[in-house]
Amino acid sequence: MTVSINPFIAAIPTNPLRALFPYGARPGMLNLASGHPSKDAYDLEGLAEAASRASLDFSAWTYGSSAGDPALIGLLAETVAMVPPGRRLLVTSGAQQGIDLAIRTFASPGTKMLVPEPVYPAVLSTCAAVGVTSVGYQIAPGDTDLSGLEAALATAGDVRALYALPTFGNPTGDTLTLEQRMRLLALCAKHDVPVIEDAPYSELWFRASPPPSLLELAPQVDGATVIYLGSLSKIMSPGLRVGWLIAPESIAAAMQEARQASDLQPNSLAQRVAYHYLQLGRLTDHVARVRALYAERHDALVDVLTEAGFMVPKVEGGMFLFPVLPVDRRNSDLFERAVAQNVLFAPGSAFCAQAGSGMFADRIRLCFAGLAKQDIVLAAQRLVAAVRT
Amino acid sequence: MTVSINPFIAAIPTNPLRALFPYGARPGMLNLASGHPSKDAYDLEGLAEAASRASLDFSAWTYGSSAGDPALIGLLAETVAMVPPGRRLLVTSGAQQGIDLAIRTFASPGTKMLVPEPVYPAVLSTCAAVGVTSVGYQIAPGDTDLSGLEAALATAGDVRALYALPTFGNPTGDTLTLEQRMRLLALCAKHDVPVIEDAPYSELWFRASPPPSLLELAPQVDGATVIYLGSLSKIMSPGLRVGWLIAPESIAAAMQEARQASDLQPNSLAQRVAYHYLQLGRLTDHVARVRALYAERHDALVDVLTEAGFMVPKVEGGMFLFPVLPVDRRNSDLFERAVAQNVLFAPGSAFCAQAGSGMFADRIRLCFAGLAKQDIVLAAQRLVAAVRT
Repeated sequence: MTVSINPFIAAIPTNPLRALFPYGARPGMLNLASGHPSKDAYDLEGLAEAASRASLDFSAWTYGSSAGDPALIGLLAETVAMVPPGRRLLVTSGAQQGIDLAIRTFASPGTKMLVPEPVYPAVLSTCAAVGVTSVGYQIAPGDTDLSGLEAALATAGDVRALYALPTFGNPTGDTLTLEQRMRLLALCAKHDVPVIEDAPYSELWFRASPPPSLLELAPQVDGATVIYLGSLSKIMSPGLRVGWLIAPESIAAAMQEARQASDLQPNSLAQRVAYHYLQLGRLTDHVARVRALYAERHDALVDVLTEAGFMVPKVEGGMFLFPVLPVDRRNSDLFERAVAQNVLFAPGSAFCAQAGSGMFADRIRLCFAGLAKQDIVLAAQRLVAAVRT
Repeated sequence: MTVSINPFIAAIPTNPLRALFPYGARPGMLNLASGHPSKDAYDLEGLAEAASRASLDFSAWTYGSSAGDPALIGLLAETVAMVPPGRRLLVTSGAQQGIDLAIRTFASPGTKMLVPEPVYPAVLSTCAAVGVTSVGYQIAPGDTDLSGLEAALATAGDVRALYALPTFGNPTGDTLTLEQRMRLLALCAKHDVPVIEDAPYSELWFRASPPPSLLELAPQVDGATVIYLGSLSKIMSPGLRVGWLIAPESIAAAMQEARQASDLQPNSLAQRVAYHYLQLGRLTDHVARVRALYAERHDALVDVLTEAGFMVPKVEGGMFLFPVLPVDRRNSDLFERAVAQNVLFAPGSAFCAQAGSGMFADRIRLCFAGLAKQDIVLAAQRLVAAVRT
């Protein structure tokens, strides 16, 4: 039998980060490649207590609203999610489902979406799966007129949305300044392009909280539309798959229909666990502890790299660094040499908007959330050794 | 700002069953409309024990494979899921996500999918959301040559898949015979059309297990391709959102990419709970108890309806009846009269493949899973009173 596969699905690019998984499982390997927090960055005691309470609620086991558990929605809005007037919050299965719903709600097959370069590669897969072409835009640190974005908006043609990760980005760790945020909103409003603001890392600041979100700034910019995506993955538990989107009422209604048509409703049990965890009042202390943990690991990693001649752009939170390799050490077999030293990194080329463009070959992404401080230092030393061999 | 919504998303039909929710919440209302099991059809003690065990597994809280937890996949295959050689099982967020992934994997926008008439309306929403046109086919009980399906396959044009719910269907409760199953597979194979077999109710038989699934029969039919969708929703807990799909290796690979692009991975916590529940070894006894419970409720409902002149097609399992109203009692205000009697049913017209076609106006869907036996009898008596007023 000849079964034809939808060409959009057949053309989903393989996520280059997944190709790294087998290396990560090797004994003795120190993994700086994957964006997975270490076990001590979870509040396992609090999560178990929340699960125990949730398991006694009948609503954890039965059907619920496709928009999400109203009690959880209320508590999210009181604690971690700022919901402006006229906006609605829908619970999603992680921010990734929010990305998918936002793309599908705005962009029909054959249209385009703007994505930052370098980019979190799952966004490219999501666009490809629904037949939407992703077109890169670049905003360098210090770039205030955003001329690259302006040019992309003016020339790409048929752009239906812009994806942004403005706070502690993945892979760069970069954060757009207030000025850059206002300029981005103004340019998108001018071109009638809604902004999808992905914000999973916003709470993970080291010393000072980041500038206001695009969602918070949007009312200051005539005609700006922002769909905000938040998540408990980086501050509570990624296995819970509890995220949320915040959208203007009419758009939220369309997104809720799209969500119901794709998987009916959010997980009832996971929502009750999130609800009880928030009720326990442990989140604030837990996030403060995680911030300190990551800041310490970040500092240790930066020290070793800088000492060894890496150029390390400053980041002020999140989970990632995107350093530039020393000029005379950009050999194409660096990945294999690092693996031989038992250290894993994500090659910069994995974050190109156009696969095979060769961009970012001089950079690597390092996650400082997954290893304890002494292991981070050891991993960095192994990386330096690999670069120097 | 003018934000344009993807026309596919804007055109998702409102699920007519959802319009019934507000009525269901009225005090004193007996709800025969919704397909929600009653609280005593859950093994709440076993689920709480499983949740307690799951909460101690670190893997419940962290990232996992987009295909699903390998330990759960293994245990499903040993207990409730028959995985033939050369096939792969992927964990999904309920069977609904399996429907979405299967449609998107086979059917690109602008192509067609065959759906049974009457049909579970969420399937229509899923097709619409991805720009796929659903075309109805009918198989009456006792129809052995399936000439209606043959005609639909021959004339619809550009059919990429067929959706079937062959065992204790929704809304009819009908089960295809072995002969009908073989004929369906042969016709679809002849037209190179893969079959999406949705099977959430298969375990809920009253007195004898149903004929083999299309998945089991497919090897006997040259060129037949079946994607099987199973679920723990009707036998363990719908709030867990744990379902699965079984597909040939190459198709499963494409579906896994589509799944990863849409929401990354199944819920880690829910998968660990399902794993521990299956490990507890309580499922067999629990399902046996649910079968007896539903059989008793079914019999009580049928007795009252038959006595009152309804024509009730025989069903042998599942959760639904789709009786024909007494000939002289098909008034258009029956729904309002029933609500006035404090009983809720789902109008037959909610299950048309073509909204507004007026089909099935002489039938109603009744769920016998949601009320205890004495309430079922009372609800049926109220319904009869509404029909007679």
